[in-house]
Amino acid sequence: MNPIEGHLPTRSPLHDILAPTGIAVIGASADPTKRGYKAMVGLIKDGYRGDIYPVNPKADMILGVKAWPSVTAIPGNPQLALICTPAATVPGLIAECGRRGIKGAVILASGFAEIGGEGAALEREMMAKAEAHGVRIIGPNTSGVFNLHHHINLLALDNVKPGDVGIISQSGNMLLSLALEAQHNGQVGFSTYVGPGNQSDIGFNDYLRYLGEDEHTRVATLYVEGFRDGRKFLEVARDVTAMKPVVVYKSGSTEQGQKAASSHTGALAGSYAMTVDLLRQSGVSVVQYSDEILPVAEGLGLLQKSRGKRVAVISDGGGQATIASDRLAEAGLELAELSEATRAKLREVLFPQASTVNPVDVAGSTDANPSLLATCMEIVADDDNVDSVFLVGMFGGYSIRFAESLLGDEMRGAEAMVDLSNATEKPLVIYSLYTPIKPPALRRLHEAGLPVYASIEQSVRVLAALGERGQYLAQIHAHARETPVDARPELTAMFRQARAEGRDLFEYEAKQLLRDHGVEVPEERVVRNEAELAAAAAALGETPLAMKVVSKDILHKSDAGGVRLNVVGEAAMHDARNAILDACRAYDAKAEIEGVLVAPMAKKGVEVIVGVIRDPIFGPVLMFGLGGIFVEILEDVAFRAIPLSRHDARSMVEQIKAKRILEGVRGESAVDKEALVELLLKVSSIVAAYPDLKELDLNPVIVNADGYAVVDARVIVDRDSDTTDKEAHT
Amino acid sequence: MNPIEGHLPTRSPLHDILAPTGIAVIGASADPTKRGYKAMVGLIKDGYRGDIYPVNPKADMILGVKAWPSVTAIPGNPQLALICTPAATVPGLIAECGRRGIKGAVILASGFAEIGGEGAALEREMMAKAEAHGVRIIGPNTSGVFNLHHHINLLALDNVKPGDVGIISQSGNMLLSLALEAQHNGQVGFSTYVGPGNQSDIGFNDYLRYLGEDEHTRVATLYVEGFRDGRKFLEVARDVTAMKPVVVYKSGSTEQGQKAASSHTGALAGSYAMTVDLLRQSGVSVVQYSDEILPVAEGLGLLQKSRGKRVAVISDGGGQATIASDRLAEAGLELAELSEATRAKLREVLFPQASTVNPVDVAGSTDANPSLLATCMEIVADDDNVDSVFLVGMFGGYSIRFAESLLGDEMRGAEAMVDLSNATEKPLVIYSLYTPIKPPALRRLHEAGLPVYASIEQSVRVLAALGERGQYLAQIHAHARETPVDARPELTAMFRQARAEGRDLFEYEAKQLLRDHGVEVPEERVVRNEAELAAAAAALGETPLAMKVVSKDILHKSDAGGVRLNVVGEAAMHDARNAILDACRAYDAKAEIEGVLVAPMAKKGVEVIVGVIRDPIFGPVLMFGLGGIFVEILEDVAFRAIPLSRHDARSMVEQIKAKRILEGVRGESAVDKEALVELLLKVSSIVAAYPDLKELDLNPVIVNADGYAVVDARVIVDRDSDTTDKEAHT
Repeated sequence: MNPIEGHLPTRSPLHDILAPTGIAVIGASADPTKRGYKAMVGLIKDGYRGDIYPVNPKADMILGVKAWPSVTAIPGNPQLALICTPAATVPGLIAECGRRGIKGAVILASGFAEIGGEGAALEREMMAKAEAHGVRIIGPNTSGVFNLHHHINLLALDNVKPGDVGIISQSGNMLLSLALEAQHNGQVGFSTYVGPGNQSDIGFNDYLRYLGEDEHTRVATLYVEGFRDGRKFLEVARDVTAMKPVVVYKSGSTEQGQKAASSHTGALAGSYAMTVDLLRQSGVSVVQYSDEILPVAEGLGLLQKSRGKRVAVISDGGGQATIASDRLAEAGLELAELSEATRAKLREVLFPQASTVNPVDVAGSTDANPSLLATCMEIVADDDNVDSVFLVGMFGGYSIRFAESLLGDEMRGAEAMVDLSNATEKPLVIYSLYTPIKPPALRRLHEAGLPVYASIEQSVRVLAALGERGQYLAQIHAHARETPVDARPELTAMFRQARAEGRDLFEYEAKQLLRDHGVEVPEERVVRNEAELAAAAAALGETPLAMKVVSKDILHKSDAGGVRLNVVGEAAMHDARNAILDACRAYDAKAEIEGVLVAPMAKKGVEVIVGVIRDPIFGPVLMFGLGGIFVEILEDVAFRAIPLSRHDARSMVEQIKAKRILEGVRGESAVDKEALVELLLKVSSIVAAYPDLKELDLNPVIVNADGYAVVDARVIVDRDSDTTDKEAHT
Repeated sequence: MNPIEGHLPTRSPLHDILAPTGIAVIGASADPTKRGYKAMVGLIKDGYRGDIYPVNPKADMILGVKAWPSVTAIPGNPQLALICTPAATVPGLIAECGRRGIKGAVILASGFAEIGGEGAALEREMMAKAEAHGVRIIGPNTSGVFNLHHHINLLALDNVKPGDVGIISQSGNMLLSLALEAQHNGQVGFSTYVGPGNQSDIGFNDYLRYLGEDEHTRVATLYVEGFRDGRKFLEVARDVTAMKPVVVYKSGSTEQGQKAASSHTGALAGSYAMTVDLLRQSGVSVVQYSDEILPVAEGLGLLQKSRGKRVAVISDGGGQATIASDRLAEAGLELAELSEATRAKLREVLFPQASTVNPVDVAGSTDANPSLLATCMEIVADDDNVDSVFLVGMFGGYSIRFAESLLGDEMRGAEAMVDLSNATEKPLVIYSLYTPIKPPALRRLHEAGLPVYASIEQSVRVLAALGERGQYLAQIHAHARETPVDARPELTAMFRQARAEGRDLFEYEAKQLLRDHGVEVPEERVVRNEAELAAAAAALGETPLAMKVVSKDILHKSDAGGVRLNVVGEAAMHDARNAILDACRAYDAKAEIEGVLVAPMAKKGVEVIVGVIRDPIFGPVLMFGLGGIFVEILEDVAFRAIPLSRHDARSMVEQIKAKRILEGVRGESAVDKEALVELLLKVSSIVAAYPDLKELDLNPVIVNADGYAVVDARVIVDRDSDTTDKEAHT
């Protein structure tokens, strides 16, 4: 299925829960330091139009609203309950809510799975009640919820305005921080916020699907400590990112951070590098630093995407043009090469000392004439080589720095920029060093929905996110994901037999699996006795050979003395076989030895590794990297969720830092990258067809200009799961 | 000389020029759009106490100050001239200034070396006049100068307050940007600013020396496109950083940025990675992003340093504690391990669900009691395992978020933090998500000189800079730089002969040089004939040997067939010698072949490279990295200016990403790092003693657990410079 055509099968049940016609506030309070007070204030102040039912056995009225002694006593029909009482009370309250017909509960208390032991037991008890009574759970251990377009502000946050940024954050402080930044820069508003907390019921994938469907949300923004169902999240993200940008900050980039996350929301972080690769594969805009979240979300919300990565810089300061050039290159963006026609037009309007090579440096031309900056932006935006325009410098401050009389011209400049942004599909990103003091021209740009940033670094991260999103959207139309190969009965039987014997596949079986599905594995044979050795020698002649022991009991063949290389001719083969058998028997007298594998030595080339793991969070994932130290020491590895598209496979090869080695160094010719891409796709298709395949490790694969050869292959068989269930797939 | 005892020999002449008792403004104007107007306004408004002499042949008075028709006509005795007129007028004006006794001139005009050709010629003409007339030049192509403690504000910047941050910036916009940020956050003030422009006379090293001596400057902050005399700068930086922090942002981290810089200030950028390494070697705090410059300068200015890298985090939000943990680890900082006593004290004051493992998460304990955060900071600051304290969260906002009644307690908390900062030498760094709206408690911290940041990322960069500076200062006392070896007459003669013959050193000569000064180079001999071969065979017995051609005409020995490895026994040596001679003659019939080098094969180990270059900007520089792809593809290399200290050598080995390979991977034992350190120090000392040594390349050096062996050595001889001059050094 082409993902852009994908549609979400049914409407998320969260719409009803997050836009209820009635809300019960359990633990409502008249004490201003309590959350049960804040929530009441939030609902009343923000003008919630539904019914509010404070629940508190000790009060008749709370903040002028009639209170009820229990959930059962409520007369109306609330869909949502906010539970502000301690953890121990929660399971009982959930049952009561369910009996009262309440569809969803927001549970603020901590003291559940994140503290382990008793807390985890309490969480299980709560979930049992929730399932029994059909109540969906937000949290526990959540900072709360708001839905500003429906005047539901259960956090009672001041000064947040309705807008189009939706937020799901496992950190309440992070939401507060974004809200304060937004309040301060005055541009961004919010749609829905949810703190998923421990995600004991509703997880990130559900919330993201909701934001994808929500008409008020133009950009979804997530702070994630850990996914519960990562595979599902990737699928939902794939659908949502085809429609609107999704910005994710994932914590746990280091071991220290993962430990901290685990004691905060009980999250299992998993490999950060893998998570980032998989999110990007699904079109997610991943931000690396927490102080980029709002700028990138704002920029993507307002500008959505750019066609590509070629940026034209217009600058009124050479130093800042230099800084911008460095940051653009570091972010993988390009300085657009301006056409001769464009440069001629720039020369017409600028001083002779101006530089019309990108980055354009106006060199004083605009000092008395700041609206000329808008003219320059128009000129470069009209160039086909340009995908986005980046204004760098002191626009907005000319009338402050030079002369007040420039204010009129500066405002005309701002107006021209607004007109240009309406006339072109190319995003305009503006950095001004005057942003902190918000002069009139910048306020005008703000009002018109043009983002203005206070740092070159932040601006460039926005430009990078726009370019990446544009490139992602351009390719998802072109590349469907590979479909599984048709599983062959004899190979399925081979897995079954290995399971029955309590072992993994033998190397020759793993290679058979690959070869039968079209993977390039050099011909080789298992030699079980002298006669088979003689036959092999006759067939192979003087070809230099590799010989390796075949035994389910010997995992590390080299350590056991079970490998001989560069063996030439029958006599040598005979000696090598005997040496291998002797060494292996000495290594492990009880080892059952099936024979010796004989294969031609691989040709010279670059050693790469292709691996498959079944990740507990994300399911089957393909891994690619160069062999040896590149994987082990430098961790220079690319990951993609299976199944891959052709684009995914190509981007894996392009992503690794060592790719220059694939492109030929020290006089070596470049390897056949397309052959490598075919291999990755084929492995993806095979894995998808054999559910008993738990892990796969092709190490090494030798790649050179003529293609590739799989030299060693291991397949780990899934021996834990139910065979019957598995066979149903084949 | 121990650098901390170093003192600058004489006082910088810049003190007189930058604090003059009279200033001539050449090109003073009554037109508000002209720099000659702005400068007049700046001087008058800021209350300059010296004499102001506007020079303009067309005016009698400018802004109420009597104007003079020419510099010559001025009656008084100005030390400084600000020249606002076009480039072409400058050489003549400089001569006139010199004749009038003016000591220094600030030249705003662009159109000099940065535009090449005619501009470069004009700059040379200007410099000839300046030298002839004893006028020192600031610029040309500079944004100007201010010295706020002396009320000299030639840029007429509004709203900059006197303070202790000195700035030297090749970008005027960068200064403006820092000034606006400072104005906005209200904490930082400035001492002196200079735009060095093209540095045709006074360069970064002079300005830094001035800031080092300036009593008003507590931290020197530099935006650098390129150094003119990088070696001198490193020496000055070494002296200044021993006294006060020096923060440098170096542009040109990418090729694009280097091009942009070159067209801006005519700067030659040089290798970015090398520049950063050398600056750090001299104790400079290098910042990578332009939006970190002010936070890091402010933090270092206020807090100076921390004892080490062990940070205690106190947080009121688990998500932000997680983010802080990730950033700290990424920045090479550690989460301090809190002692059991400290944790017990924390448990006494916090709720049971709080985490007292660093990062400390108060988990709601402070919601009704924010001053408890200060108590926690006191507790951890008292722990010997802690070097600095990092408060993360919403301090300052409790009275906004929870209840106004908390304001008093919050102010008490701020006061307690101020007291703690006075009582402890450990820096307190505070991140608050309320920073953008400046609540009272944060304003109090500001007033007391405690830095408060608006982003976790910025805070961590400040903590990292403090830790790095602390560690730098701790080691400069302990480690003097190595002194040169005593050059040996016979080796000096060897260089002289190579020069005379117009060649570089032969490999065996290079090895002799190293061996004679105590470097471990395996014994080897040059075999010139059959008799010498027989003698070598007798001496070496059955040792496996490497044999290599010796010829000044054959640079790439392997390509010429001039290398044979693993040669064993006299017969094989004989064959190998003939094969080498035949192949080399076939390769280049005219090559003069001196003989064949015979050496035992090196033992197994890790291949590393040690190199020396004479950089045009920084002089002799030592390079270290792992062999092959690590240097060529991954550019995983460390640089240090020669001479090195023992700390420098150690830090080089620790710096490379591949150091895990040196520490033993895949069952290999760790190499002898100390032996490697000795090698680096020895090479540094040798290079310092032989000025004719232009470049050196030890590639490979094999290192293992037993030490190292230099397997191949090349020495390039400096054939361009004057021999007589060089010999004077030896």
